[in-house]
Amino acid sequence: MTTDAATALAARTRAFVREVVIPAEPGWGETLGADVLDELRAAARDAGVYAPHAPVAFGGLGLPLTDWSPVFQEAGYSPIGPAVLNCMAPDEGNMRLLEKVATPEQQERWLRPLVAGSIRSSFAMTEPHPGAGSDPDALATTARRVEGGWAIDGEKRFISGAEGAGFAIVMARTEAEGDFEAGATMLLTPLDAPGITIGPSIRTIEAAIAGGHPHVRFDGVFVPDAEVLGDPGQGFRYAQVRLGPARLTHCMRWLGLARRSFDIALDRANARELFGSPLADLGVAQALLADSAIDLETADALIDKAARVLETDPRAGAALSSIAKVHCSEAVWRVIDRAVQLCGGDGVSSGLPLIQYLNEVRPFRIYDGSSETHRWVIARRAARARAREVAAGEPRRDEVS
Amino acid sequence: MTTDAATALAARTRAFVREVVIPAEPGWGETLGADVLDELRAAARDAGVYAPHAPVAFGGLGLPLTDWSPVFQEAGYSPIGPAVLNCMAPDEGNMRLLEKVATPEQQERWLRPLVAGSIRSSFAMTEPHPGAGSDPDALATTARRVEGGWAIDGEKRFISGAEGAGFAIVMARTEAEGDFEAGATMLLTPLDAPGITIGPSIRTIEAAIAGGHPHVRFDGVFVPDAEVLGDPGQGFRYAQVRLGPARLTHCMRWLGLARRSFDIALDRANARELFGSPLADLGVAQALLADSAIDLETADALIDKAARVLETDPRAGAALSSIAKVHCSEAVWRVIDRAVQLCGGDGVSSGLPLIQYLNEVRPFRIYDGSSETHRWVIARRAARARAREVAAGEPRRDEVS
Amino acid sequence: MTTDAATALAARTRAFVREVVIPAEPGWGETLGADVLDELRAAARDAGVYAPHAPVAFGGLGLPLTDWSPVFQEAGYSPIGPAVLNCMAPDEGNMRLLEKVATPEQQERWLRPLVAGSIRSSFAMTEPHPGAGSDPDALATTARRVEGGWAIDGEKRFISGAEGAGFAIVMARTEAEGDFEAGATMLLTPLDAPGITIGPSIRTIEAAIAGGHPHVRFDGVFVPDAEVLGDPGQGFRYAQVRLGPARLTHCMRWLGLARRSFDIALDRANARELFGSPLADLGVAQALLADSAIDLETADALIDKAARVLETDPRAGAALSSIAKVHCSEAVWRVIDRAVQLCGGDGVSSGLPLIQYLNEVRPFRIYDGSSETHRWVIARRAARARAREVAAGEPRRDEVS
Amino acid sequence: MTTDAATALAARTRAFVREVVIPAEPGWGETLGADVLDELRAAARDAGVYAPHAPVAFGGLGLPLTDWSPVFQEAGYSPIGPAVLNCMAPDEGNMRLLEKVATPEQQERWLRPLVAGSIRSSFAMTEPHPGAGSDPDALATTARRVEGGWAIDGEKRFISGAEGAGFAIVMARTEAEGDFEAGATMLLTPLDAPGITIGPSIRTIEAAIAGGHPHVRFDGVFVPDAEVLGDPGQGFRYAQVRLGPARLTHCMRWLGLARRSFDIALDRANARELFGSPLADLGVAQALLADSAIDLETADALIDKAARVLETDPRAGAALSSIAKVHCSEAVWRVIDRAVQLCGGDGVSSGLPLIQYLNEVRPFRIYDGSSETHRWVIARRAARARAREVAAGEPRRDEVS
Repeated sequence: MTTDAATALAARTRAFVREVVIPAEPGWGETLGADVLDELRAAARDAGVYAPHAPVAFGGLGLPLTDWSPVFQEAGYSPIGPAVLNCMAPDEGNMRLLEKVATPEQQERWLRPLVAGSIRSSFAMTEPHPGAGSDPDALATTARRVEGGWAIDGEKRFISGAEGAGFAIVMARTEAEGDFEAGATMLLTPLDAPGITIGPSIRTIEAAIAGGHPHVRFDGVFVPDAEVLGDPGQGFRYAQVRLGPARLTHCMRWLGLARRSFDIALDRANARELFGSPLADLGVAQALLADSAIDLETADALIDKAARVLETDPRAGAALSSIAKVHCSEAVWRVIDRAVQLCGGDGVSSGLPLIQYLNEVRPFRIYDGSSETHRWVIARRAARARAREVAAGEPRRDEVS
Repeated sequence: MTTDAATALAARTRAFVREVVIPAEPGWGETLGADVLDELRAAARDAGVYAPHAPVAFGGLGLPLTDWSPVFQEAGYSPIGPAVLNCMAPDEGNMRLLEKVATPEQQERWLRPLVAGSIRSSFAMTEPHPGAGSDPDALATTARRVEGGWAIDGEKRFISGAEGAGFAIVMARTEAEGDFEAGATMLLTPLDAPGITIGPSIRTIEAAIAGGHPHVRFDGVFVPDAEVLGDPGQGFRYAQVRLGPARLTHCMRWLGLARRSFDIALDRANARELFGSPLADLGVAQALLADSAIDLETADALIDKAARVLETDPRAGAALSSIAKVHCSEAVWRVIDRAVQLCGGDGVSSGLPLIQYLNEVRPFRIYDGSSETHRWVIARRAARARAREVAAGEPRRDEVS
Repeated sequence: MTTDAATALAARTRAFVREVVIPAEPGWGETLGADVLDELRAAARDAGVYAPHAPVAFGGLGLPLTDWSPVFQEAGYSPIGPAVLNCMAPDEGNMRLLEKVATPEQQERWLRPLVAGSIRSSFAMTEPHPGAGSDPDALATTARRVEGGWAIDGEKRFISGAEGAGFAIVMARTEAEGDFEAGATMLLTPLDAPGITIGPSIRTIEAAIAGGHPHVRFDGVFVPDAEVLGDPGQGFRYAQVRLGPARLTHCMRWLGLARRSFDIALDRANARELFGSPLADLGVAQALLADSAIDLETADALIDKAARVLETDPRAGAALSSIAKVHCSEAVWRVIDRAVQLCGGDGVSSGLPLIQYLNEVRPFRIYDGSSETHRWVIARRAARARAREVAAGEPRRDEVS
Repeated sequence: MTTDAATALAARTRAFVREVVIPAEPGWGETLGADVLDELRAAARDAGVYAPHAPVAFGGLGLPLTDWSPVFQEAGYSPIGPAVLNCMAPDEGNMRLLEKVATPEQQERWLRPLVAGSIRSSFAMTEPHPGAGSDPDALATTARRVEGGWAIDGEKRFISGAEGAGFAIVMARTEAEGDFEAGATMLLTPLDAPGITIGPSIRTIEAAIAGGHPHVRFDGVFVPDAEVLGDPGQGFRYAQVRLGPARLTHCMRWLGLARRSFDIALDRANARELFGSPLADLGVAQALLADSAIDLETADALIDKAARVLETDPRAGAALSSIAKVHCSEAVWRVIDRAVQLCGGDGVSSGLPLIQYLNEVRPFRIYDGSSETHRWVIARRAARARAREVAAGEPRRDEVS
């Protein structure tokens, strides 16, 4: 259950988002201006709701992961809420990774301004086919040993937020050296470093992530030793540290937007009459509303459970966060889609924000592993876990009598 | 089954769309220029594929309704195909209505230029809440008797295509007069007639229908007797004449776009390897592909059947077209949505047209009666039909033994 | 569209099933006695509705395949209707195969009594894992050349109807001989022939198929040359002749039972009040009723189309019958499942037959290829067809711009 | 999160069910004998797993509600597990009600033997249409004041477990008297009391609940004052005390059976090869396995959350338990249904228990309020809650810009 502190923060966040953030939302086809964002962030600081997840020492509110969900959901009730509270992807996940793995010097250099909102960041792992996509083993970008550091060569694609970002956490393949195994290594790299080319951004249907999703090319980019994040060769392990919570925070934020959409649908249902009865009492509409309520509650409960398990058993938590990611991304999509239906022609017009929301969350079923890739992993994991049980002596249950 | 003539025309249309139309498609965020459209239409005439549904005497190919489906599907394989072949809504439905109900003089005046593509048209029935929306009985716009004709007063909303259209078929309530019952009457009205105000267009997510969806206001708009379409008071009957086929042609066109999306997904599945196997052989992808194949075939079969029934039993055909509309609009949506999933990040980016297609077809689940409204009607119709059977002597089957 | 003759026969069948067959249905947990079946069949002959699909020369009504659907659906409105009209699986499929492939002598010996209902039959193709199951290439049963005929050795499983059947059509692997290729060969075998052992029947949840689903073992079973069905080595081709229509007739029969269930649900919905409004007007119930109406109509249209295609293009028809099988088996299941829900506690009790019907149709999603196996085949077929199109010059559509 | 004590008890229960209970399960079509049940219960006591939910003072293990889920799921892994551990419906819910509301004397008389397993019990609330069914306000059974107690008149239907039960908790309408409001009153009544007639049991498809679901008629049945449960007129409030947890324990038990079914499917998937690859790696099977894993986890998380909320906010907990009931009953059904598919012909035969399990859980989607009734309630509750928010000043979100 949520702690009292989190409950209070969620309530403050709720009030702030509804009273301050929503009135400042950009219109259909517009984007949030940098000045407005800065003002809103200042207001968020004043209201004591800024950067809820970030360490207190670096300017955040220090909320533990198990308490993030109600707060992030309130932030996500506005599509610009997470940006205002500086808890949007990919920065939020990078903050957590820097908190857990970075040296104090790295934290001062990168985490402090990131929490302050004076820079943005990227996480550069995905590569063009057939490199590291859904399958991290295919990592093709390399960092080779050079005097005093490393030289990165390779190409990354779909690097969310890279345009205008201050730095990226770059994943590259490294050779074994001394005590360090061969494997993937994370390197902190300013994005204006010599040898970096940021390609044209891929235009995607959603707009929530500032900085687009461009290709980023690395041609012998030098990174000094001091900017290796954690130990060389441990990149995939650290990626897991980042991944589980990062998947969940996506779920939390979008669940907030789904709640907003559900409220729009409920308001419409309560207000409109169709064939003489309020829409909420009318046949098929009730099924939609009920299914959305069920989707919201299952998503919420699953996020909650995954967050708790992540704190006690990271491996089981990561597995559960994969299930949560599939369920939540599809549940959120369904809830908004049903809201569109319930609002009829307005649902697909600029008069209401619903069709924009639908487009905002559509990629969430694909990013960070598509629902299909996750399903494949989930099925395989379940089959293997059961095979281990049987190998350990549990009788097979499928024998025909 | 499709006749040989239709099969040949479908093949010609297929070749024309793929060789001529698709290369001329506008890019992401662009729209088709009027000049390009004119050139493409000229090419369509030369290729013998223009206006397949329109009467031969007025410049069309005179295809019977039961043969439209394969041809319209080929047209719909490009989002601009139906506009090029001049078989897009709302013009196509208006052509059919004029063919069936208009006087020869009205046909010369309105149908001929409409088939020629020199004007566009609108169908002005829907009204602001609580007027005629999904419930036509609530019609609030009136046409009152004046010297030599009628004066229309009222407000219409979501009048697709009205911006720049040459005329509208306006539905208005009329009093009983002589042999004519009170009821709804259709009137042919140039949209530049005095007293007509075309409001700002509602911006919607789809772009396929030229001329937007504006409000149109009528303040004492004069329409001479010669421009009454059919008999006064018979408007709802004529609306049914238009409605059944118009619903089906939407299904046909969008089914074509779903086939395009399915081809994109199949090409991607055949080309890509994920985890070492072609995507088409990979786990969860197969389920998506198979479900889409099933959706395409059920939609196709249902359209076919509904078209045949419409020709022999218009009342049963209208009921079946309602079922077809729900099924096809949702099937088409699912097929494109699955294609987006199968193309991963490209599916939601400007690199492929899929996310645009998804937005194009989204409103189809709402326009012409939302899936929920149709379901309500379908359920009620089924319940009443069964009640009539039982009243006629068929034993109840739910008695508990 | 259905011919007038078929429409008339469907009407006669409807009347016969409702007036004669339904009153004779066995109660919960009971089975239809042989005497009652004989009487009902005699009545069916008198009513001119017996064996609608069988050749006139052999005692049937000679209806063409494209007209079967409305008649079989009326038969299936009672779970015992198909047995009464002698158009139940596996006999109905075997009759068609014998009609198409057997010699006149074979037809006299086996088809005549089969149509008359004096014997039953089996189709012995499926084998224990890893033999011929869903994958016919794995056929392990053999027929080797002996003096004057063949000797069959092997084991078959799940041989529907084998207990008490007069004969089986046995599929066995044969060597090349003379003009005949090596391959699968069909042999007509009395089931009391020396060397045949019929094992204990597998108890399954459905009861509609008389004669259970036992294992059948063949130890050197002699079959004379005259009892080879068609040409040696052509067994798989003949199996296809049987398979496409046999899949469809399952769909037709079960669709009739789904209509019965839908009527029960509609009667209940019309009669009951819940929270003060008739259930048919009540919220969520309408969605269920509408979805069932949609399922019934899509299934009906798809069966219709598949039957027409089967007559003109057997290969395309077989592919479409696979899609029809998946869609109909699942649609039928859903329709009955929804009817159970709409009847509440009565739906799962012996007071109504619905839960029995649900159990009757459950295996249909598995028999003749499970929905999952069909999906796999459908996906692969779609992917390969598209690959051939592209190989033939059609441009790939998935190229990123 | 589960406490350590609960984790240990769940582990003991798991071992006991798998080692002792499963080997004693009755075969297809058989039922558990009373003697075997007694022996198994004795073994359960010895193993320290008996009556986990019941108060320690009365012979149970005193587990708090928030810890029931893992233990009940382990019990439900066998269809007879809950009966063996004496935590099956309706007794388990009645135990909780007696624990919370009964006097010490009533507890000695009824709760002690109930926990001991020497008697069974019923909960007699539901009435024939149009009495108290899904709508408790329609309660028609009355208890009128007589000398020294009350006289019950009325008819109840679908009284689960009434055949052979020692007593029932009867819900009857009572007049206001002294401090007590008019309303529903609960009365403890031996089922062999004069005036009680237990009708023939309704045969239903599931077998897990001992004692059938008969009608029970009350003709002036005398109940002394000492057997009123709690205060007169508070029956509906107490029914809520029972209802929320009772819904959840159904979810827990059936979720256990769904896990068993999933294990069967996984074992089959791991063992079988189809088309040359293990079924678990094969296309469509993976989607089924993944969807089941997702269903199991969402159900588990939702039960967990509902149990926690029930302990802190009974009203919110009851609302959430309604959502949990819909989701879990349908999720459990889907999981078992998919397992049937994955096991092919064996899935619908007596060789595996899956089709029995499917029949066991089918009524769960109807009992205790059908999914459709709950959806109606959930939709209405959501709409009203939102209307209250708006009435309290929250701006409407559906206004068109």
